[in-house]
Amino acid sequence: MSILIRNGTVITENDNRDILHANILVDGNDIKYVGRGEPDHDQEIDATNRIILPGFINTHAHVGMSGFKGLLDDMVLSEFLDKTSKLDSQRTEEGIYNSSLLGMNEMINSGITSFVDLYYSEDVIEKAVEKTGIRGFLAWATLDKEFTTQEGDPVKNAERFIRKKHTDTVTPMVGIQGIYVSSDENYYRVKEVSEKYTVMVHTHLSETRKEVYDFVKTHNERPVEHLGSIGFLSDKLLAAHCVWITLNEIKLLAKHNVSVSWNGISNAKLASGGIVPVPELLSNGVNISLGTDSSGSNNSLNMFEEMKYSAISINNDRWSADTVKSQQILDMATRNAGMALKSPLGIIKEGYLADLIILDLNKYNTIPYNDSNVVNNIVFSANSGNVDIVIVNGKVIKSKNSIHEDESAYLNINYL
Amino acid sequence: MSILIRNGTVITENDNRDILHANILVDGNDIKYVGRGEPDHDQEIDATNRIILPGFINTHAHVGMSGFKGLLDDMVLSEFLDKTSKLDSQRTEEGIYNSSLLGMNEMINSGITSFVDLYYSEDVIEKAVEKTGIRGFLAWATLDKEFTTQEGDPVKNAERFIRKKHTDTVTPMVGIQGIYVSSDENYYRVKEVSEKYTVMVHTHLSETRKEVYDFVKTHNERPVEHLGSIGFLSDKLLAAHCVWITLNEIKLLAKHNVSVSWNGISNAKLASGGIVPVPELLSNGVNISLGTDSSGSNNSLNMFEEMKYSAISINNDRWSADTVKSQQILDMATRNAGMALKSPLGIIKEGYLADLIILDLNKYNTIPYNDSNVVNNIVFSANSGNVDIVIVNGKVIKSKNSIHEDESAYLNINYL
Repeated sequence: MSILIRNGTVITENDNRDILHANILVDGNDIKYVGRGEPDHDQEIDATNRIILPGFINTHAHVGMSGFKGLLDDMVLSEFLDKTSKLDSQRTEEGIYNSSLLGMNEMINSGITSFVDLYYSEDVIEKAVEKTGIRGFLAWATLDKEFTTQEGDPVKNAERFIRKKHTDTVTPMVGIQGIYVSSDENYYRVKEVSEKYTVMVHTHLSETRKEVYDFVKTHNERPVEHLGSIGFLSDKLLAAHCVWITLNEIKLLAKHNVSVSWNGISNAKLASGGIVPVPELLSNGVNISLGTDSSGSNNSLNMFEEMKYSAISINNDRWSADTVKSQQILDMATRNAGMALKSPLGIIKEGYLADLIILDLNKYNTIPYNDSNVVNNIVFSANSGNVDIVIVNGKVIKSKNSIHEDESAYLNINYL
Repeated sequence: MSILIRNGTVITENDNRDILHANILVDGNDIKYVGRGEPDHDQEIDATNRIILPGFINTHAHVGMSGFKGLLDDMVLSEFLDKTSKLDSQRTEEGIYNSSLLGMNEMINSGITSFVDLYYSEDVIEKAVEKTGIRGFLAWATLDKEFTTQEGDPVKNAERFIRKKHTDTVTPMVGIQGIYVSSDENYYRVKEVSEKYTVMVHTHLSETRKEVYDFVKTHNERPVEHLGSIGFLSDKLLAAHCVWITLNEIKLLAKHNVSVSWNGISNAKLASGGIVPVPELLSNGVNISLGTDSSGSNNSLNMFEEMKYSAISINNDRWSADTVKSQQILDMATRNAGMALKSPLGIIKEGYLADLIILDLNKYNTIPYNDSNVVNNIVFSANSGNVDIVIVNGKVIKSKNSIHEDESAYLNINYL
């Protein structure tokens, strides 16, 4: 089945950051053509006066926790962690599934077409991916046995999940919770799994000052340095947070081509203090993408919010409104994330996967705009109300016609 | 004409912060009844499974600049100021009117029912207030003649505007641009106007470190101290920004019952550096409300964004997620602003003005919720898509039926 998306303004996010007035042919799962021509097609979408973007890619989430929204606010970190782990220990498969559907639908509504997830029970989450049509990069979280509520051996659980047959839109990964619950042995085993099955690794890294401080006290080196010294850093690693890292650690991340997922709202809401050292990461050539983290610490799974918050918070932190520009922020939400995941995603060009969003910016909150400021208005002014159509893997999974779906069905169901 | 809003969950924002399951009778411009009874009425709104809040009050805006959205990003402050003043000098009445309509409609869509404006040509802006039905507190900006593009004497212009007959939903105020363009003479004259006509005063105050530093160099005292020494501080003053103030200045603001409008997003986007010292202002008893500032420096006129950004940024700044709690933030967006404006606004109770919003939180982005976390979800998760109905001065000015208004009519008109 092929679709011609006709006559839109295409923000390609390609190497030249071209903004084209063009037609796009989606054929099967892929983008087959971008240009002025009109190749044969089965269906059409009229995108006149609409903006077409690569779908947003959320590179850090725990979508199974979406039902925890509004339960974990206004409390200091130790209380947040206690309460989260108490909720987590009570969970059923049904609760995780319902939470996942809720979170995925929220993401789709705000134009997120792919997400990276770190959690246990990724097999349950995969069912919700199949149901909603979103694309999932699902990293089964591992940690030392004494710290987990998972039954059995977390690494074996992760391996079993990776070996399963997966739907088209699921890419399995292997996860590590973090240095505070993971011995070197766990890192070695995860690395082995990653190499054996050629899957990416996702982890939390240096999120809070306390975890870093505790680690330095016992290990006499900093977390990123330690992961370097045990051979764990590589271009297969996507590390979330990296708030509390030194310049030496930045250079290590750069040297080993580790990608960083910046979760500005979550870090601020949990009051991690400080802000990810984005200018230094960028100047050292580290690839940065954006993540929402969970509904417990955000409390939205919304890339528009994430882009705006990230841009203005780092600019204020560095006292200059041009520290990180809006084009760089949009890159982080799209093409940088595709690079981090080594997937043909985040750019609109022939041969890339057809994950696209169509925005209607002809609204009070985004008028006026033209080609010269459309990126600014997407980063600083747009919100989920501007998302008209969401296409994942060549299929329309949200359109104006689905806006009237009965969201209230999610109100009184079990999220535990 | 009376309306019974039936069966909603009412977040009263009263002194006890009661959340009631109740009916509300709106009669004329006022709230006449809140309770379980069913007083006589002409019309009904069914608010079953809906949340009713006092409308949000935006205590600092320049709504005539809404057409500047996306033109003033990614640049350092000096460039921003140059470009803004260049745009400003080219403006026509038509451009200011169109910009005002655009911004007011954006505010209404996100549940803002009142705003405080600081600009020249408030007579033009008043026409847009009449057209849209929003409530405006319109402060004609004054400054020393050598710094303005206004024709004539700014204070006389302000006085003329105040003396005009105004529509029901307009309250005139007198404004001052700021200490960097205003001599003591201008402050004295504004104070006289304020006392003569019993109107409130609105001003920018200590927004950037540079303006404070420059002032201290020439005056050998800090701006708030100076305004205290010339007798300008009073409970009639609503001061926007106050980013760069000392503890001594906070005590002066408290002593004279000055209200502060916190514009977190604008301050961050302009990279003012630092964050308004909210905990110290609160502990000294200063009344704080929230403002969006203009579309040039925000770039949204959206109280949901403002509440979330404000909460998480101050919490991160102070390294503790309970520095300012979500209930306090909602207070700033509603009842505190009513107090600042000395108007019966921002609380749902008998005798107060009927400025109300009805939210539908039965959506992916705000589920799950109940009475115990509904305030959290409004502050951290809701967005303009949750706004169902907006009532100002007893009249429905937005409802689900008006969602399909043709916003694109605003696309190709003149904003200069």
